[in-house]
Amino acid sequence: MGLIVQKFGGTSVGSVDKIQNAANRVIEEKNRGNDVVVVVSAMGKTTDQLVGMAKEITSSPSKREMDMLLTTGEQVTISLLSMALISKGHPAVSMTGWQAGVETEEIHGNARILNIDSDKIEKEIQQGKIVIVAGFQGATSEGEITTLGRGGSDTTAVALAAALKADKCDIYTDVTGVFTTDPRYIKNARKLLSVSYDEMLELANLGAGVLHPRAVEFAKNYGVSLEVRSSMEKEQGTTIEEEVKMEQNLVVRGVAFEDEITRVSVIGLPSSLGGLSTIFSALANDHINVDIIIQSMTEGETSSLSFSIKNEDLTETVKVLERNRDQLLYDRIEWESGLAKVSIVGSGMISNPGVAAEMFDVLAQNEILVKMVSTSEIKVSAVVEQVKMLPAVEVLHDAFQLSANSVKA
Amino acid sequence: MGLIVQKFGGTSVGSVDKIQNAANRVIEEKNRGNDVVVVVSAMGKTTDQLVGMAKEITSSPSKREMDMLLTTGEQVTISLLSMALISKGHPAVSMTGWQAGVETEEIHGNARILNIDSDKIEKEIQQGKIVIVAGFQGATSEGEITTLGRGGSDTTAVALAAALKADKCDIYTDVTGVFTTDPRYIKNARKLLSVSYDEMLELANLGAGVLHPRAVEFAKNYGVSLEVRSSMEKEQGTTIEEEVKMEQNLVVRGVAFEDEITRVSVIGLPSSLGGLSTIFSALANDHINVDIIIQSMTEGETSSLSFSIKNEDLTETVKVLERNRDQLLYDRIEWESGLAKVSIVGSGMISNPGVAAEMFDVLAQNEILVKMVSTSEIKVSAVVEQVKMLPAVEVLHDAFQLSANSVKA
Repeated sequence: MGLIVQKFGGTSVGSVDKIQNAANRVIEEKNRGNDVVVVVSAMGKTTDQLVGMAKEITSSPSKREMDMLLTTGEQVTISLLSMALISKGHPAVSMTGWQAGVETEEIHGNARILNIDSDKIEKEIQQGKIVIVAGFQGATSEGEITTLGRGGSDTTAVALAAALKADKCDIYTDVTGVFTTDPRYIKNARKLLSVSYDEMLELANLGAGVLHPRAVEFAKNYGVSLEVRSSMEKEQGTTIEEEVKMEQNLVVRGVAFEDEITRVSVIGLPSSLGGLSTIFSALANDHINVDIIIQSMTEGETSSLSFSIKNEDLTETVKVLERNRDQLLYDRIEWESGLAKVSIVGSGMISNPGVAAEMFDVLAQNEILVKMVSTSEIKVSAVVEQVKMLPAVEVLHDAFQLSANSVKA
Repeated sequence: MGLIVQKFGGTSVGSVDKIQNAANRVIEEKNRGNDVVVVVSAMGKTTDQLVGMAKEITSSPSKREMDMLLTTGEQVTISLLSMALISKGHPAVSMTGWQAGVETEEIHGNARILNIDSDKIEKEIQQGKIVIVAGFQGATSEGEITTLGRGGSDTTAVALAAALKADKCDIYTDVTGVFTTDPRYIKNARKLLSVSYDEMLELANLGAGVLHPRAVEFAKNYGVSLEVRSSMEKEQGTTIEEEVKMEQNLVVRGVAFEDEITRVSVIGLPSSLGGLSTIFSALANDHINVDIIIQSMTEGETSSLSFSIKNEDLTETVKVLERNRDQLLYDRIEWESGLAKVSIVGSGMISNPGVAAEMFDVLAQNEILVKMVSTSEIKVSAVVEQVKMLPAVEVLHDAFQLSANSVKA
């Protein structure tokens, strides 16, 4: 007898059939003797359709009204899933974010959860009901409807699991778990049975895409045990928890990658203290995400600065730099597009200083030029030419023995 | 400087273009110096689509969950209309039923409004904002989402107008007002500039369809002045208020009609006291609406009873009667389908006892046989063969001079 929070993403509730399927997964858990709280996203393309309608009305819709609009998406799903459960003989009750007690900041479009008042949910659980909660949404203390931004439904699920002291939070999605690398591109990719929060965080940030980093961080902070698993296949998924029990011998746990990257270099900057902060504040104000940053002191009084951005942000980035030229006093700007980032991730790296060296060695042997490097305690990222991205992933996946010892065929 | 409540029905907000048009109508009113509160329905076919999805999940969806589902329809409209107004430079704020303080009974699917706490709306009006409220919905004191049933958005608009002591409630729809009869069928039909609440009630109940009788009754009880007008055409509509100022000389104000009617006769009933109540309680329990009821005492100890129902309810009606045969002890049941009801309405009838006679005379002259009759203080209804319905409407419309003195071409 435990309490399980289950989360079904948009593709897992994308049609009436899939909602029936999700209902069956809920009932299986219930039949194992557990209480179940379910968090759902909007059905499939619903959010895109709603955004499309808003864009037809105006190119810059009010953020408050966008929240009012988008939250209808999950409200449709909760009611349909509840109906399905009730019609299958299992008492269920749906709740919007505000009904479920999800209190957020007074910010529209990207609010953080401040508090969860779980009394109402607990009362329904005590009456034997399955509670279906709308993900991605909450309300301020004043009753204004808000949304949690990207990865919002994952965050709702983890936050509810923490508030309800659930035994586990299962994230049902369209893949069977977390893989050593993207199985759509690398045929030798294999599923990991467990990863640590930090590893998942690096994998999530690097574009593995199955679980939002914000939710992983939340889970880490509150010690919520997660499992990423398929809503269609019944096989075991990937457990995400503090201590990784299996596969400890593997130093590198996965290879992540991301394309469409541009390197921008600002050359001949005077070595003043304020330059860096001026550049990155200006870019942040324009919502340009900067990833890798490298500052190299050269002889004399000038230095160069390189950073990586998404290709799509290049025009805006150059504008920002030129706007601030009088203040920054640099010589010139250079950039190179058509790049990609390849990263190896694994908490075992902390105690293995040779891993980065081995990575560069493998890439060099395969004639893959490294343009930029960034490291963290459990990750090494290398920027390479985009055409070399998949070959790089493949040789690294093999070199770090991720293809071997396959857990599943 | 006044306060106007405007209500836009589903067809008036059925597309992005129509929402922009509705926004323009709101702005025109605002520019006349009035504060405006707007009530909207779900867009066009949205409610039907949502019902369709629920029916795909289960043939008998939970009423609570249906309310959860259907209320998303108006929530989409309020957000889009607000966005449109804001993008046109007019501060606006949308509110769901619960946010607007619409408190209802704890009944799903057909709740009555218990109270409106209009503080939140008034605060926004004081800040110069246009307030857009979702019609058809409310919440119980416990925060359960409810819907008001048929005609719900009209009722929301009138209830808000009463609570806010608005100067007027404008009902925007796809016709230009209330007509002497249905202009789609009778080419001489003309628009009435004003009708009384009671006349409107009879016209609404008789299928004129522009305004729900429940909303008219609400308006009558709270003295809310209504105007039914077109959301597309800019011409004057029909005012509905206690005292009809114009056209007082007309005894009959309109001719309503309804087809698909069946007469059911129960013949040879013993003249006991309980029979009528047994029949009509049983029919009501099966949700069969009975309209006209005629009981005729005949010689001896038996009587006959005739009543009219919709064609579609015939099978069920016969079943109910047969189920209760042992208790009712009637001789036999007879029925006649293919009938229609034609009614003349006008508050001037109260003081004109000859109107019913004139109606029957006109019908007889035109060889239209009257099968059943029902009268109220301001209405006379005659059941005729369905093929004679439109000819009957036409000759009555002419005979009572409704086609003459046309206000608009």
